[in-house]
Amino acid sequence: MTHLSDLNTPAAVVDVQRMLRNIQRMQTRADSLGVKFRPHVKTTKCLEVVKAQQAAGAHGITVSTLKEAEQFFAAGISDILYAVGMVPAKLPQVLAMRRRGCDLKIITDSLAAARSIAAFSAENNAALEVWIEIDSDGHRSGIEPEADLLLDVGKTLHDAGVHLGGVLTHAGSSYECTTEEELRELAEKERAGAVRAAERLRAAGLPCPGVSVGSTPTALYAQRLGGVTELRAGVYVFFDLVMHNVGVCRTEDIALSVLTTVIGHQEEKGWAIVDAGWMAMSRDRGTQKQQRDFGFGQVCTEGGKLLEDYLVTSANQEHGIVSLRSGVDPQIAERLPIGTRLRILPNHACTTGAQHPEYHAIDQKSDALSWPRFYGW
Amino acid sequence: MTHLSDLNTPAAVVDVQRMLRNIQRMQTRADSLGVKFRPHVKTTKCLEVVKAQQAAGAHGITVSTLKEAEQFFAAGISDILYAVGMVPAKLPQVLAMRRRGCDLKIITDSLAAARSIAAFSAENNAALEVWIEIDSDGHRSGIEPEADLLLDVGKTLHDAGVHLGGVLTHAGSSYECTTEEELRELAEKERAGAVRAAERLRAAGLPCPGVSVGSTPTALYAQRLGGVTELRAGVYVFFDLVMHNVGVCRTEDIALSVLTTVIGHQEEKGWAIVDAGWMAMSRDRGTQKQQRDFGFGQVCTEGGKLLEDYLVTSANQEHGIVSLRSGVDPQIAERLPIGTRLRILPNHACTTGAQHPEYHAIDQKSDALSWPRFYGW
Repeated sequence: MTHLSDLNTPAAVVDVQRMLRNIQRMQTRADSLGVKFRPHVKTTKCLEVVKAQQAAGAHGITVSTLKEAEQFFAAGISDILYAVGMVPAKLPQVLAMRRRGCDLKIITDSLAAARSIAAFSAENNAALEVWIEIDSDGHRSGIEPEADLLLDVGKTLHDAGVHLGGVLTHAGSSYECTTEEELRELAEKERAGAVRAAERLRAAGLPCPGVSVGSTPTALYAQRLGGVTELRAGVYVFFDLVMHNVGVCRTEDIALSVLTTVIGHQEEKGWAIVDAGWMAMSRDRGTQKQQRDFGFGQVCTEGGKLLEDYLVTSANQEHGIVSLRSGVDPQIAERLPIGTRLRILPNHACTTGAQHPEYHAIDQKSDALSWPRFYGW
Repeated sequence: MTHLSDLNTPAAVVDVQRMLRNIQRMQTRADSLGVKFRPHVKTTKCLEVVKAQQAAGAHGITVSTLKEAEQFFAAGISDILYAVGMVPAKLPQVLAMRRRGCDLKIITDSLAAARSIAAFSAENNAALEVWIEIDSDGHRSGIEPEADLLLDVGKTLHDAGVHLGGVLTHAGSSYECTTEEELRELAEKERAGAVRAAERLRAAGLPCPGVSVGSTPTALYAQRLGGVTELRAGVYVFFDLVMHNVGVCRTEDIALSVLTTVIGHQEEKGWAIVDAGWMAMSRDRGTQKQQRDFGFGQVCTEGGKLLEDYLVTSANQEHGIVSLRSGVDPQIAERLPIGTRLRILPNHACTTGAQHPEYHAIDQKSDALSWPRFYGW
């Protein structure tokens, strides 16, 4: 059995207990709010993690690429929502998957795409299922709940015999919230926008069985989800420093870290140089504009104890610079001698995970299991 | 044969003609300066690219991880310099590779590591080859050329029977230069620092056959390399927008781009949404603090023509937002309708490439060959 202390560095380490606690926390919320939970697997792209989410009670998955859909369908998961706007060129792959028995749902937020989907559906006698993307917070994609376009898109699809599965929205601006009040308000705005869109579709005689909402922060702060059928969230499974700054987790909830080794020093500068650079941490500086900037990550001991004043303050490809958040530690070479192993909490679990071919999952006994993850499109 | 127009998006595309021109440019410089050229393969981690570098005249390779060393040694390349500070835990792997016939050289810049290497070498009767890392510009790692430590490290290794291969330095601060004069001055500083360190070692009776310098900008602007034996550079093979801002390449020299498809719009905001988000572009915002900020990348047509005013101005995991550099284009949906394919020039070829399992290499006839790349440690 491999132990934490045997792992080559840098390595992505998952604290399984923390992960299971995070999974349970979100599932319990969905259960108590009376909605299904559909985790977004883009965070981990890892079957072992997704199995734990399903075991806790999740219904189906959300994916951000057709590669994720293919991989998880091959692993036996059939109820899949591909939550990125569909383009004509990707329809043949979607149809092929559905014909192989995958209950793959696609989304759209434009008349142009809806028309392409309708035409493709008619030409290929394809029983596609489409959900309409709603913009509930001006964050990115989606149709405004009150827009005429909503009904135009719905009718275009419905009239062509496409199955309208529902509406979905993602209040991505929740990452910019910093107080519980803001989070509660945004969660309600997300809910209300999606429900309003569904009501308008139904009032126009169009089917809209599903109403799907979610982002990690709004999912954790929604007070009620009346009219909603399912909740989606991704990064909650590991959490990270960005989520900590948003206020939805403690640092002790962060289940992903990067194990690294001190490889050198520049004593006059107060630097310890480690073998976790941006290749291991990612270039994500998500905390840069938040209330607390964690550089490229928060330094912990190998055992996971926070070394609160030390950050990875700079990063090259395979070199990270560990130093005090501010000021110079003249004793850094004695404090963290060459060979010292540290663990770094990441700004963003999705980007940091994506740099690694596998997670090393550590349970209570500190055994490390290799949990492969995939990448690409 | 696959053509550019058949590729699934997002995809990393390599313009082979540009790449070969970049390779030739650097090799010609090394030849005319009278030094060997040892490319840094961390940029591509791709055998096909490295084969082209070797075919043009490169001697050996530089690597940033032992995984790179293992992969390229398995592909038949034996002369390998591992240019990240050695730590005791990685010595057994190094020794195993050397015993399998790999001429793998390691580096150090501290007495603590030198002592570990010396002890390991003695215990294992290992004929290791170590180069001493020199700090020529205060950028990151290395021993200052005039420091007593230099001789202490040299003696510690030499006395233990370790083969001293030479000194190496990397003027990484060249990325902050913006004028030819600064680049020439820094190149000379890099050269002078490494040569001075070599002279001091030799004067102390220690061997120092190799003197290795380089970074893409200094390699391209060095006026003379007296006393130097080899040059190293990595990103020159593809170049990128950061290098363009430094002033060492034109946008027409950038050989790597990300092919993407328009998947939606927010017309009032002047946005086209594409399927290249940060997962395809990386989170690297290397041009942010430079003279010209390119957001997450410069937009081009599918054929590669610059759409000068359009950038990827924001990115989520699988969504990029294309908009005018400044201002709102009210016609963006007509200009770039859904399904339009674009190519995005990246800020940083090393980070963007790392997001992709393969490059799609396009030659003059626009055939796309799959060139796999690896990742991990």
